[in-house]
Amino acid sequence: MYMREIELKGHIIDSFILAKVFDKTLELGGDYKVLEFDIGKKKTDTSYAKLLISGDTQEHLDQILESLQNVGANIPEIENANLKKALKDSVLPDGFYSTTNHPTHVKINDEWIEVANPKMDAVIVVYPEEKLAETKVMRKVKAGDYVVVGHNGIRVIPPEKSREAGQLFEFMNSEVSSEKPKEAIIRRIAEEMHEIREEYKKTGKGGIAIVGGPAIIHTGGGGALAKMVELGYIQAILAGNALATHDIESALYGTSLGVDIKTAKPVTGGHKHHIYAINTIIDAGSIKDAVEQGRLKEGIMYQCIQNNVPYVLAGSIRDDGPIPDVITDVMVAQDEMRRSVMDKKMVIMLSTLLHSVATGNLMPSYIKTVCVDIQPSTVTKLMDRGTSQAIGVVTDVGVFLVLLLNELEKLESRK
Amino acid sequence: MYMREIELKGHIIDSFILAKVFDKTLELGGDYKVLEFDIGKKKTDTSYAKLLISGDTQEHLDQILESLQNVGANIPEIENANLKKALKDSVLPDGFYSTTNHPTHVKINDEWIEVANPKMDAVIVVYPEEKLAETKVMRKVKAGDYVVVGHNGIRVIPPEKSREAGQLFEFMNSEVSSEKPKEAIIRRIAEEMHEIREEYKKTGKGGIAIVGGPAIIHTGGGGALAKMVELGYIQAILAGNALATHDIESALYGTSLGVDIKTAKPVTGGHKHHIYAINTIIDAGSIKDAVEQGRLKEGIMYQCIQNNVPYVLAGSIRDDGPIPDVITDVMVAQDEMRRSVMDKKMVIMLSTLLHSVATGNLMPSYIKTVCVDIQPSTVTKLMDRGTSQAIGVVTDVGVFLVLLLNELEKLESRK
Amino acid sequence: MYMREIELKGHIIDSFILAKVFDKTLELGGDYKVLEFDIGKKKTDTSYAKLLISGDTQEHLDQILESLQNVGANIPEIENANLKKALKDSVLPDGFYSTTNHPTHVKINDEWIEVANPKMDAVIVVYPEEKLAETKVMRKVKAGDYVVVGHNGIRVIPPEKSREAGQLFEFMNSEVSSEKPKEAIIRRIAEEMHEIREEYKKTGKGGIAIVGGPAIIHTGGGGALAKMVELGYIQAILAGNALATHDIESALYGTSLGVDIKTAKPVTGGHKHHIYAINTIIDAGSIKDAVEQGRLKEGIMYQCIQNNVPYVLAGSIRDDGPIPDVITDVMVAQDEMRRSVMDKKMVIMLSTLLHSVATGNLMPSYIKTVCVDIQPSTVTKLMDRGTSQAIGVVTDVGVFLVLLLNELEKLESRK
Amino acid sequence: MYMREIELKGHIIDSFILAKVFDKTLELGGDYKVLEFDIGKKKTDTSYAKLLISGDTQEHLDQILESLQNVGANIPEIENANLKKALKDSVLPDGFYSTTNHPTHVKINDEWIEVANPKMDAVIVVYPEEKLAETKVMRKVKAGDYVVVGHNGIRVIPPEKSREAGQLFEFMNSEVSSEKPKEAIIRRIAEEMHEIREEYKKTGKGGIAIVGGPAIIHTGGGGALAKMVELGYIQAILAGNALATHDIESALYGTSLGVDIKTAKPVTGGHKHHIYAINTIIDAGSIKDAVEQGRLKEGIMYQCIQNNVPYVLAGSIRDDGPIPDVITDVMVAQDEMRRSVMDKKMVIMLSTLLHSVATGNLMPSYIKTVCVDIQPSTVTKLMDRGTSQAIGVVTDVGVFLVLLLNELEKLESRK
Repeated sequence: MYMREIELKGHIIDSFILAKVFDKTLELGGDYKVLEFDIGKKKTDTSYAKLLISGDTQEHLDQILESLQNVGANIPEIENANLKKALKDSVLPDGFYSTTNHPTHVKINDEWIEVANPKMDAVIVVYPEEKLAETKVMRKVKAGDYVVVGHNGIRVIPPEKSREAGQLFEFMNSEVSSEKPKEAIIRRIAEEMHEIREEYKKTGKGGIAIVGGPAIIHTGGGGALAKMVELGYIQAILAGNALATHDIESALYGTSLGVDIKTAKPVTGGHKHHIYAINTIIDAGSIKDAVEQGRLKEGIMYQCIQNNVPYVLAGSIRDDGPIPDVITDVMVAQDEMRRSVMDKKMVIMLSTLLHSVATGNLMPSYIKTVCVDIQPSTVTKLMDRGTSQAIGVVTDVGVFLVLLLNELEKLESRK
Repeated sequence: MYMREIELKGHIIDSFILAKVFDKTLELGGDYKVLEFDIGKKKTDTSYAKLLISGDTQEHLDQILESLQNVGANIPEIENANLKKALKDSVLPDGFYSTTNHPTHVKINDEWIEVANPKMDAVIVVYPEEKLAETKVMRKVKAGDYVVVGHNGIRVIPPEKSREAGQLFEFMNSEVSSEKPKEAIIRRIAEEMHEIREEYKKTGKGGIAIVGGPAIIHTGGGGALAKMVELGYIQAILAGNALATHDIESALYGTSLGVDIKTAKPVTGGHKHHIYAINTIIDAGSIKDAVEQGRLKEGIMYQCIQNNVPYVLAGSIRDDGPIPDVITDVMVAQDEMRRSVMDKKMVIMLSTLLHSVATGNLMPSYIKTVCVDIQPSTVTKLMDRGTSQAIGVVTDVGVFLVLLLNELEKLESRK
Repeated sequence: MYMREIELKGHIIDSFILAKVFDKTLELGGDYKVLEFDIGKKKTDTSYAKLLISGDTQEHLDQILESLQNVGANIPEIENANLKKALKDSVLPDGFYSTTNHPTHVKINDEWIEVANPKMDAVIVVYPEEKLAETKVMRKVKAGDYVVVGHNGIRVIPPEKSREAGQLFEFMNSEVSSEKPKEAIIRRIAEEMHEIREEYKKTGKGGIAIVGGPAIIHTGGGGALAKMVELGYIQAILAGNALATHDIESALYGTSLGVDIKTAKPVTGGHKHHIYAINTIIDAGSIKDAVEQGRLKEGIMYQCIQNNVPYVLAGSIRDDGPIPDVITDVMVAQDEMRRSVMDKKMVIMLSTLLHSVATGNLMPSYIKTVCVDIQPSTVTKLMDRGTSQAIGVVTDVGVFLVLLLNELEKLESRK
Repeated sequence: MYMREIELKGHIIDSFILAKVFDKTLELGGDYKVLEFDIGKKKTDTSYAKLLISGDTQEHLDQILESLQNVGANIPEIENANLKKALKDSVLPDGFYSTTNHPTHVKINDEWIEVANPKMDAVIVVYPEEKLAETKVMRKVKAGDYVVVGHNGIRVIPPEKSREAGQLFEFMNSEVSSEKPKEAIIRRIAEEMHEIREEYKKTGKGGIAIVGGPAIIHTGGGGALAKMVELGYIQAILAGNALATHDIESALYGTSLGVDIKTAKPVTGGHKHHIYAINTIIDAGSIKDAVEQGRLKEGIMYQCIQNNVPYVLAGSIRDDGPIPDVITDVMVAQDEMRRSVMDKKMVIMLSTLLHSVATGNLMPSYIKTVCVDIQPSTVTKLMDRGTSQAIGVVTDVGVFLVLLLNELEKLESRK
């Protein structure tokens, strides 16, 4: 029987932390005893619990403790984190600690250091001299890097459920269903976006990133999104060749996949338009060049260029062309995506499973995340893959964007 | 080898009739020989073909011929239809002819008689004295009825593809996909509805029936639909206990399934509201009574009462209550549904697989049919079950109705 | 400020009851204070909490308390339940208590009485003289019945999460996803079914009910299900006209919806087979008559007749025919469905949203419930509508049944 | 009025070619007149039609003619194809011809040359000296290449519908529905696979490529697929990092995504297994190295190495790691995918929208294509994007593979 005391603090009951600790321990075949328990008497009080956790072997106990850390338990009289040097580039030492996407601290030389840039499924690399720590994805680990192994000296802080009412991210639970009053939900998202934009205007910080797929254009939502870029609501766009191509197709020819956006009728020779659009940009040199040469005069990409909104176009094996702006090496693309999303306040994912899951993997859980898709399975998969903070809105992205712009414009005119 | 000549006339090439005849014949193991062929030289010309169809046995040939009739082939030197008396109520004679939902004629005493009230999967009952024929569902057949058996003397007229451009029902093909420009599609539907309403105002004929499920209310589309009733766009509503209940819940409490329609927040005790709504109506006596007693003051059902728009509420085993207006015997409900839909010009099916398929089964193929659902499978199933004339719009019904009302109001104000 | 003490007992932490009580209270705008708290020290110990709940008005407090009862809170020094007479048939007194599907007790004359036949969205009718109480659906309430109003004197016992590992209903969480190892899950269901059958054989109690849709037959799973009936695994079948019709179609013609089950090829004239099948049964008189006349010789319905397995065929507005065994009044059908499912140990719902939700509405939460459907939305909707105990298996019902029978036969031969 | 004669030959009626020509012409606002028509008298006869097509302008007519070519029309007294030199790398001359995925010929110096390696959305590059032509994707076009422009001198041969019965690819139509008899369909696929393998064994030509996603492993189908590789049924695998990673995870730890494949239970620390699996392969050097070092001993990838079955692992922005075998540049990956699929007889796509559409884009329409997915939308999208030859099987991939292996083993043992 191997044992270890752990401590839990905060709103551990209504954040389900205590329940999860009990649950996880029993699920993993361990046991617990409550040593101390001090329940918060009022809603503003925090609670405290000291528990004794036991496992069959040291390894078993370690596994349990690691799981408990990931649901928010802390281990008192914490030892320093154990570090091991990576011996080869990209190869991790045995027993490395694999991160969550929650804010994390690591104890080095008896000091707690915050781990920079949380993301899931990465490792923690520590620079003891500089008292710094950061997450690194596997392939970025270099021989000689100090990697955290085991579970000692790690503290994970999952988002506590806020007790303030009224905000989008509190009122909506994560139940994924299309059967919700959509106008009301869209209004709440608009209010949240408006607030973030106002703050961004004042401070130059935060802002909103869009992660989008080509269905935005096919369903007729491109115009609304372009307008939002123009109005300053969007600070970054993460997408692929398809979104840019069909946006440009619709700017040049009025069609998307050969269907006229204004009439919903297929157009003569329209199936070639997206290929022609790509050819135009290749000929121009880049999207920016096409704008500057006066060849591209409207649409989402045009507004990005005009308003200095950065975009990352990540390549995929489905791409025709691609447009020269597309980053064809997916690892390079991941790095760029991460850079452009890390400092945002909100990420809105629009009708793209691939880019949504990819972005969710790259970013910390404290960024507000909305996922809009007509298929509930997209939202479910995103959350299954670890982006559990996402709020799902199961609706048609084309009409969603039209109504969202309506609401934003009402907020604009109100002032 | 058993053979028979058949004739094909009309736009048999671009309506695929000729191809289907060839196809069906070979698929069923038969063979064909072209005896005469006169192709329409210009787009306004019709074509003519005389074919010799052969099968292994008389029965085999009959099976083939019956299939060919259903895709539009005619059999020249047509014999009269064969009639057999039903010996028991609801029991059909062997070899009875099972109908399509297309307009159909039957040859009786060397005269072609139009079969009244086409619907699929029914039988044709003939009244030779009166020179009348009608479809009857199985359970309505009485002992002594003359039922058509075999395939002789029957002519089916499937809808020919119109060559006029510009109308909703021509420009949209039946491809079921969410990735279409929705604003444009909604505008077309609005124009079609407007035209039908204008005609209805003038002639009192035609009109539009709604077939709807409770997701209309849950997704926040109830207000828009109520307004359409008020504006005279709707001439009948076919629904169930759930649509009426949640509509009345939202009128009485502002919620649907306990969620506030205006804020999208769940409401204290809201899960009881729909039960309370039902109780209110039971206590009042009926929906009409509740309106007259001043207890029900808004919503879809209220507008139906105020504007004399008839509704059929068909019962289902899922029903709570139900509201007294609900017809709990499903066979009685079918009869009422059929009565209220037969003379309409257009049927719009909104987020209900059960009622949509049921209505599709009851009505002729010449009524324009739009099916709106967030699940493509609903549209696919509707068409698989024989309602092949339906146009599918894969979108979120709540936002669809809000945008559809916008478009209708634009058309109103334009005048 | 209105206040009331409540008590919580049992595994209130790892069953999330305490967290839900805190959560619900704050969500509804109330407040709480912890008066006493005694945490279970070991995994076998239960915990105890005494809380003071406050609300703005008596009504507000009552609403909160009612919500807390439904998540498992008890109110100590409990007053007797309040009863009010129903004044009219089917009309409930104001403020009636609407039930959950969990086991419930009601305090009458200082005595706790168990409420018979729990189901959701019903009311509790009390017979004080006989010391009895039962749930009644609205339409069954008679003038003069004593109906429970308000929240006093009611105790609800939601299923506590078991701490024993290894059983199907513990190991699977309710996450609805198709991406799970299906062979393993099917094996677990087979083991559970086997155990239930063995117990049923010995005691004649419990057993398994199937709730099924016609996709069972279309996807080629009919043979496997018929075999399970024959092997004694099924004690009741709840379905509609369509399942019976296509089962009989496949027995008579080898097709389902006109497609040959053995070859997957469409069959000449096959679209008429289901109508012919219905006609055969109408002519025979009933399914039983058809079996006895030697006209129906295989399939699910045949096995039901041969093995005295009762079935309920509930009518719907989609029905062709229907077969004489179908109950066309949906309220009568509900009563029969409830009767046949109440004493079962397990309910397996196969590819039917309508019948699954209807059955879920009728039955208590302590019956083990498995829902198999290729559409995750069916499972989600079932759980959204209150049948939260259901375990979802997102898979193809045809192949599911084939593999399930394989596993059952392995268990048979093992002995 | 601009006019041009065209010719149609072959089974132009039951392959719908004639109907499509009429249809397309009218849809694009043109007109037609039938000059000659000779219908095939018997099912083995081909038909012939000479039509006069007219348009408003030369450009309009050209657009119509191009559309007609793509549905199979030929233009008699054909002029040579027009060629234009590309002036810059990757930039196409105006009016370039965009290819279909059907076999295509191009007329150069009065000679018809077959275009090598058909794929959709590419251009035709001609080498007049060598009398050769090939498709090239945009980015591969070099300055100086002769690119076909306009529609002259091009002949497209869409697959004619075979009149032989009994084969998988004839009996199944393209209707996408889950409601089909799955065992029968699986048996047909098995027979087709068996035949292809026998031919491959004899000739070393043809064979089957798998395009697969990680759901194969999550749903428990990995073992069955590995066995098929071992039995010689698979000649190439196209997948991504995820399939390889989870296959290796299941080989090393018995889990997929941390869930035990054999018991369906989540495993302690299982969420780290896929990361550990990647680390193992990075440490080994490659999958092959891991096999040779004895670290990887079972599974799909192991069987590929053991049986010399080539695989292409294409990178995506979702990838963790990735495994060193993954090609991170998507354009390089496309080239490899194309190389490995071009000579195959059949491609089976299993639960991956991304890789399926990508592969469909790369390959000619004459390769038999089966797409298995639990979501009908995957099949629909694949076909919408041009891979119209695909046969869709809407089912659960895990159980599909288990049953498919059963059928293949029956065929093995039969001999």
